[in-house]
Amino acid sequence: MKKEDILTRGICFDPEIERTVDEILASVRTNGDQALYEYNRRFDHADLSSLEVSQEEMQKAYKAVASKFLETLKLARKNIEDFHRRQVRSQFVITDQPGVVLGQKITPIERVGLYVPGGTAAYPSTVLMNAVPAKLAGVQEVVMVTPPNEDGSIKPEVLAAAQIAGISRVFKVGGAQAIAALCYGTKTIPRVDKITGPGNIYVATAKRRVYGMVDIDMIAGPSEILVIADETSKPAQVAADLLSQAEHDRMASAVLVTDSLKLAKEVQEELKKQLMTLPRSEIARTSMENNGKIILTDSIDEAVKISNQIAPEHLELSVQDPFRILGAVKNAGSIFLGTQVPEALGDYLAGPNHTLPTGGTARFSSPLSVDDFVKKSSFIYYTADALDKIGDHVIDFAKKEGLDGHARAISVRTKGELL
Amino acid sequence: MKKEDILTRGICFDPEIERTVDEILASVRTNGDQALYEYNRRFDHADLSSLEVSQEEMQKAYKAVASKFLETLKLARKNIEDFHRRQVRSQFVITDQPGVVLGQKITPIERVGLYVPGGTAAYPSTVLMNAVPAKLAGVQEVVMVTPPNEDGSIKPEVLAAAQIAGISRVFKVGGAQAIAALCYGTKTIPRVDKITGPGNIYVATAKRRVYGMVDIDMIAGPSEILVIADETSKPAQVAADLLSQAEHDRMASAVLVTDSLKLAKEVQEELKKQLMTLPRSEIARTSMENNGKIILTDSIDEAVKISNQIAPEHLELSVQDPFRILGAVKNAGSIFLGTQVPEALGDYLAGPNHTLPTGGTARFSSPLSVDDFVKKSSFIYYTADALDKIGDHVIDFAKKEGLDGHARAISVRTKGELL
Repeated sequence: MKKEDILTRGICFDPEIERTVDEILASVRTNGDQALYEYNRRFDHADLSSLEVSQEEMQKAYKAVASKFLETLKLARKNIEDFHRRQVRSQFVITDQPGVVLGQKITPIERVGLYVPGGTAAYPSTVLMNAVPAKLAGVQEVVMVTPPNEDGSIKPEVLAAAQIAGISRVFKVGGAQAIAALCYGTKTIPRVDKITGPGNIYVATAKRRVYGMVDIDMIAGPSEILVIADETSKPAQVAADLLSQAEHDRMASAVLVTDSLKLAKEVQEELKKQLMTLPRSEIARTSMENNGKIILTDSIDEAVKISNQIAPEHLELSVQDPFRILGAVKNAGSIFLGTQVPEALGDYLAGPNHTLPTGGTARFSSPLSVDDFVKKSSFIYYTADALDKIGDHVIDFAKKEGLDGHARAISVRTKGELL
Repeated sequence: MKKEDILTRGICFDPEIERTVDEILASVRTNGDQALYEYNRRFDHADLSSLEVSQEEMQKAYKAVASKFLETLKLARKNIEDFHRRQVRSQFVITDQPGVVLGQKITPIERVGLYVPGGTAAYPSTVLMNAVPAKLAGVQEVVMVTPPNEDGSIKPEVLAAAQIAGISRVFKVGGAQAIAALCYGTKTIPRVDKITGPGNIYVATAKRRVYGMVDIDMIAGPSEILVIADETSKPAQVAADLLSQAEHDRMASAVLVTDSLKLAKEVQEELKKQLMTLPRSEIARTSMENNGKIILTDSIDEAVKISNQIAPEHLELSVQDPFRILGAVKNAGSIFLGTQVPEALGDYLAGPNHTLPTGGTARFSSPLSVDDFVKKSSFIYYTADALDKIGDHVIDFAKKEGLDGHARAISVRTKGELL
């Protein structure tokens, strides 16, 4: 991939897919649950009698999961909670001017829908990473949608994670139709105020189409890693980290930027070696061939500059003194400090969110956080005396903008007349 | 308007306009400045020799503005700064676990583009409300685009506000072509990371189309006010407040919710009376006829519930004890407390932002704030010992998700081998 391609990468929307998605959105809006049952048959080959996962199914799934993994899920929840709790914000109030109270109020979003992909991509970590910050934000109701298997079941680990995360209801529906259901509401599935979670191109397109009627987290593109490594990095570790992104999907991108020619060559050798035994080697190889890159720089500082231009989702500072360059990093979703910190640690357990800006959007976007599940409202209180003091300025401003009605709303109070 | 229409209101996108906008976007992407000069001639009837406002033009405009209004602008800047400064957030770091450092880094967005509409809607307040929070966030470069008058000039008040707000460069271009220039960059206009500011349907559509390549503030719909008033409200004041929204445009909406039949009737009379002398009465009358409404409730608490469903951009609590019900307000962009606080105060001078969520998006969106001009990055540092402790959990998690490459990135460190 040319450097130019890295800088202009992003998600392309296919008009053909947009049309299909629009049809699905319209059909669910009109036909509700009936459309969902129909799409479940057509796309997921699942003939369901009920869209909602029952309490009995929930309990059965929880028991089916190994107790050791339940412990891992609970440890993950604890670490995610501990990190995200620090993001919870306070309301504020300003009382500096006599007779004036200004403030900012924080209110949780009322209802959130979490999309969890099906099949091999049904990740319990996704459930925790989305639901935990929503709950910490104070969201009353977090519901989940996920496509059913052909026999109508849902992966037990996903249902266990949903219970550990405190998700109230789970519905068996996926694709654009699930997004439609969350946006418009059906008899069974409640309309939500925000939809989060990853999905395939149909899900991503549907989220993009409904954005505005309902909020969305982001339009997630393929996963990315950029590793900045110096000669103190171990080639086998760097290669393993690059492949841990490359194995996600064929569109994933893994880039090494280093000031050491020796390391660059050794990593190349390691990549070949490790690919031979990696279970998902076919995917990882395609991804490395299409989007993999090793960039050689004169210095680590130059490497940071290149990384800022690329704005990667995951950035590893696999160098001797990573804290030295932390301040110079401007654009990156999540930053992994030191040779001993693989990106995979952040995917599950460390605590920070794994829902991160892709496709260069780290230039302006942030990891999913508690902030994404609240909204702010400002408030203004003035006494009549305080309004009197500032009134003429407001009237002047409004008249300059040609909005006499605005001026009158002031003058009717401060002067007792319509100007 | 039926209640149902209020609850499902929002912005409709016209496929015809989308096609036109897509053509404009493509043309600017390909032809750069040349396309901008051409569109300036075609749409704004302005034949320019330069796209950028010169230093000389800037100074001339500043001198052309009445010194009293410059003072008003500076007072507005001060109040907006004082309020938004409270929104500036700190980075945080967590060191609770031995050998573990987790944190959240805050970085300003590098370059922001501010769209300011032309003609009668060229509002200096828009300039301040967008630029001040961007500057407080630490944005290095805030540039502005605005369509030129036929003689190639820009409203002096707008240029004066730009200078007072610390905007570095102003370009004479409007419409979808201005959004394209900010998104892709041209020889003259720098590519930005985020575009904010209101605009007509072409601007809104263009912003929606480029969202993802570049960030946007929001898709702003018509302005809205909901006034909750009890019998202590003065009919002339309530009517003036309703009309101050209605005069914005024909699509604006102004709704009164009251538990007093007497007030409802008197406001209706006042509306008729005030419309007779309001300069923008034609616009305000159309807006009131299309989207105006008076809703009678049994109680003020019920009025708040209705307001939460509507999720208005501006909410006036024109009641005797507004602080009693502040906590019950869930969905509103900006809240005006008490009978003596008209919404117009918030448009200019009080301090809170006037860029607010419309079309019911206050369910999930917030006023424009300093937060909108920064992005967060998480960071993770683990010592080798700390990684050893948690390693097996991560390996287990990765294997459960079928991502052996992820497990290997851990095991190559904790066990010295690829699992």
